[in-house]
Amino acid sequence: SVWTGDDFSAPTPNIIIMLMDDMGWGDLGVFGQPSKETPNLDRMAAEGMLFPNFYTANPLCSPSRASLLTGRLPVRNGFYTTNAHARNAYTPQEVVGGIPQEEILLPEMLKKKGYISKIVGKWHLGHRPGHLPLENGFDEWFGAPNCHFGPYNGITTPNIPVYNNSEMVGRYYEDFQIDRKTGESNLTQLYLQEGLGFIFTQALAHRPFFLYWAPDATHAPVYASKNFLGKSQRGRYGDAVMELDYSVGQILDWLNLLGIAKNTFVFFTSDNGAALMSGIMGGSNGPFLCGKETTFEGGMREPAIAWWPGHIPAGTVSRQLGSVMDLFTTSIALAGLVAPDDRVLDGLDLRPVLFNNSVIDRPIFYYRGNEMMAVRVGPYKAHYWTWSNSWEEFNKGINFCPGEEVAGITTHTQEEHTLQPLIFHLGRDPGEKYPIR
Amino acid sequence: SVWTGDDFSAPTPNIIIMLMDDMGWGDLGVFGQPSKETPNLDRMAAEGMLFPNFYTANPLCSPSRASLLTGRLPVRNGFYTTNAHARNAYTPQEVVGGIPQEEILLPEMLKKKGYISKIVGKWHLGHRPGHLPLENGFDEWFGAPNCHFGPYNGITTPNIPVYNNSEMVGRYYEDFQIDRKTGESNLTQLYLQEGLGFIFTQALAHRPFFLYWAPDATHAPVYASKNFLGKSQRGRYGDAVMELDYSVGQILDWLNLLGIAKNTFVFFTSDNGAALMSGIMGGSNGPFLCGKETTFEGGMREPAIAWWPGHIPAGTVSRQLGSVMDLFTTSIALAGLVAPDDRVLDGLDLRPVLFNNSVIDRPIFYYRGNEMMAVRVGPYKAHYWTWSNSWEEFNKGINFCPGEEVAGITTHTQEEHTLQPLIFHLGRDPGEKYPIR
Ligand SMILES: [Ca+2]
Ligand SMILES: [Ca+2]
Repeated sequence: SVWTGDDFSAPTPNIIIMLMDDMGWGDLGVFGQPSKETPNLDRMAAEGMLFPNFYTANPLCSPSRASLLTGRLPVRNGFYTTNAHARNAYTPQEVVGGIPQEEILLPEMLKKKGYISKIVGKWHLGHRPGHLPLENGFDEWFGAPNCHFGPYNGITTPNIPVYNNSEMVGRYYEDFQIDRKTGESNLTQLYLQEGLGFIFTQALAHRPFFLYWAPDATHAPVYASKNFLGKSQRGRYGDAVMELDYSVGQILDWLNLLGIAKNTFVFFTSDNGAALMSGIMGGSNGPFLCGKETTFEGGMREPAIAWWPGHIPAGTVSRQLGSVMDLFTTSIALAGLVAPDDRVLDGLDLRPVLFNNSVIDRPIFYYRGNEMMAVRVGPYKAHYWTWSNSWEEFNKGINFCPGEEVAGITTHTQEEHTLQPLIFHLGRDPGEKYPIR
Repeated sequence: SVWTGDDFSAPTPNIIIMLMDDMGWGDLGVFGQPSKETPNLDRMAAEGMLFPNFYTANPLCSPSRASLLTGRLPVRNGFYTTNAHARNAYTPQEVVGGIPQEEILLPEMLKKKGYISKIVGKWHLGHRPGHLPLENGFDEWFGAPNCHFGPYNGITTPNIPVYNNSEMVGRYYEDFQIDRKTGESNLTQLYLQEGLGFIFTQALAHRPFFLYWAPDATHAPVYASKNFLGKSQRGRYGDAVMELDYSVGQILDWLNLLGIAKNTFVFFTSDNGAALMSGIMGGSNGPFLCGKETTFEGGMREPAIAWWPGHIPAGTVSRQLGSVMDLFTTSIALAGLVAPDDRVLDGLDLRPVLFNNSVIDRPIFYYRGNEMMAVRVGPYKAHYWTWSNSWEEFNKGINFCPGEEVAGITTHTQEEHTLQPLIFHLGRDPGEKYPIR
């Protein structure tokens, strides 16, 4: 069939992005979780490429996800707020808008090449009509528009609807139970089945697909199904991780079984660092400082694994400084698309990294809202501003850095160092404990 | 030859114990070091059994090594002191004695089965005549009796001799250079060659051997040879780790090349946690609290890998709580010896763990000198006493827990909790941040 016009030198692979919610770098065995309870993710790394230096674009759910799907920093795509605590940005239930319509999302791009796109799980880029996934390029959706704080009490806590495409089919805690006492819920299993079913349908139809698989079981309140509850060494949080790890394994096995593994690019990562303010109900950021909501390494460095048998060399470790924004740029390149030229893209095309283990020079920017707090260049990270959280919050028992205190760094007021940034060498000092000046 | 009396169901393997100096749990890629610069150790784990819950018996060099070679807690073998700072035990240059003669060391046991034993590197169980390795069961020695603090100034700092068997062949910093400015030294290469040569000689002679390979390149002042200096992402400490990792790979390759890998039990571990008081010149304890000299996890949990192709299943992770003392007991069992019955042994025979991935119920005791500070049973750790270091030391800038502070735990006075111990769940809370009560 070389005569049909197919370009076999550049096949357009299926694309699966597995995005975890609040899972920390240190939650995977391959990244040093002592319980070593992620055999499927560890196998994915052994068969693929591990990224120990991979970052989100913002240490909170919404702007991180907006950056991933647009390939642009929150300050460019506009999806951030600064009026919340700690200058951070999220999507409170009261927000009426969503990701700006001017933004081009990954599924909108991929549609040009005939891809069918599905989001399974959490959207978080707007929860009112006009701002939902099917209005932003996705063809299918099963999941919730928002975080599963709750449960709904009808007075102060809004409901968390679950959608099947454009139809609301129920609510978290009501039709889709999470037992707040035991942590039992079948939602990860539903999300797994939705993913497997979508893959199967597209494989049968020989249609290229994009699956954005975004379960939320590791976001507080964490949950797991009956088969996983109590199984981990780490309590309920570890149970949720084990079920997600199992699900990743099921998806990779499914690709192999269907014979499409060699035509499917899979990337696993998380939207922000582990939520250390949740104590033992949160995850682990390994050796890194602080967690979610901060611009220290614990807030923004993410677990990351790329997998594509026959294309990405097995068992490799990349030194690339990567970003969730690169998933946009790399995906459109893999699909044979040209990047839009009417806007700045912050994501890199990682193909030279994935295929040749090249390292591309690029900085990492660490934002809170529209404030650039820090920059990483090579092994060096310069903090222009330092801040964990306010004294007011801290004194109420909210702690983004429990058990950690680095004088002059984990400050409880927003401290300026723009004239003489605090510089760390992240190779010698991944925990940001010893400023060079 | 089933008629010669040989018991083929229990071959007596060669035994290699690789003991690092002040290397931390978090220094290995397989345990979460972000630089991922230990491909040989990671491969050793992939081909063998990983122990994420393996402990020393004391958070300092000398008593740790005494416990490993006797299978007994320091309070039983007597090799500890309590007069030094923080109740810790070491072997100052002024000490005139050594490991008590009543103690039975591993090479003394193995001699009964015809093993030839060599120590390469640091001894640290007595540095005066009468207390050296060849007077304690070893047949051969190349290395130093003590730590390589220094250099020798002839007035306040004694020399660090290097022995070849019973002959002193020179001194650290003089005949065996360590450039204090650049960190360059060939000592790890010498220790590697001594190990390879010993293995080769015994393999040719078909004689069972015990190699106790104890290089000290990761003990401050850390050093590496020219080929490794500047090569790591972590500075000089990482260079030393890379050279040791390379050396481990050379030794394993050598066993394969000589055809004796299937008859050689190899165990890799470290004598105590990373020396966090050395700042960026020290190692990493991953997610664990504090470091060397303390009884927090960072002081006593060690990287550990068992390797024996064809006997230990490849790629397994053990949930066993292990101890350096188990290396004595397991080694004599592997050699077909019966443990001495005139004394208490604290080490376990790990054969059911190694061969069947069983888990044996046992506690871990955390000592400083003769003070039992804490006990671990299953996932629970009870602190009867808490102490990092004294206010006096701390105020001089000596910090065993840099960047870390857990209120009421990392105390600067020795705090008693014997009536109501502080209890942590190390599965949910490996960093010892959230006491259960
Ligand atoms: Ca999140
Ligand atoms: Ca040591």
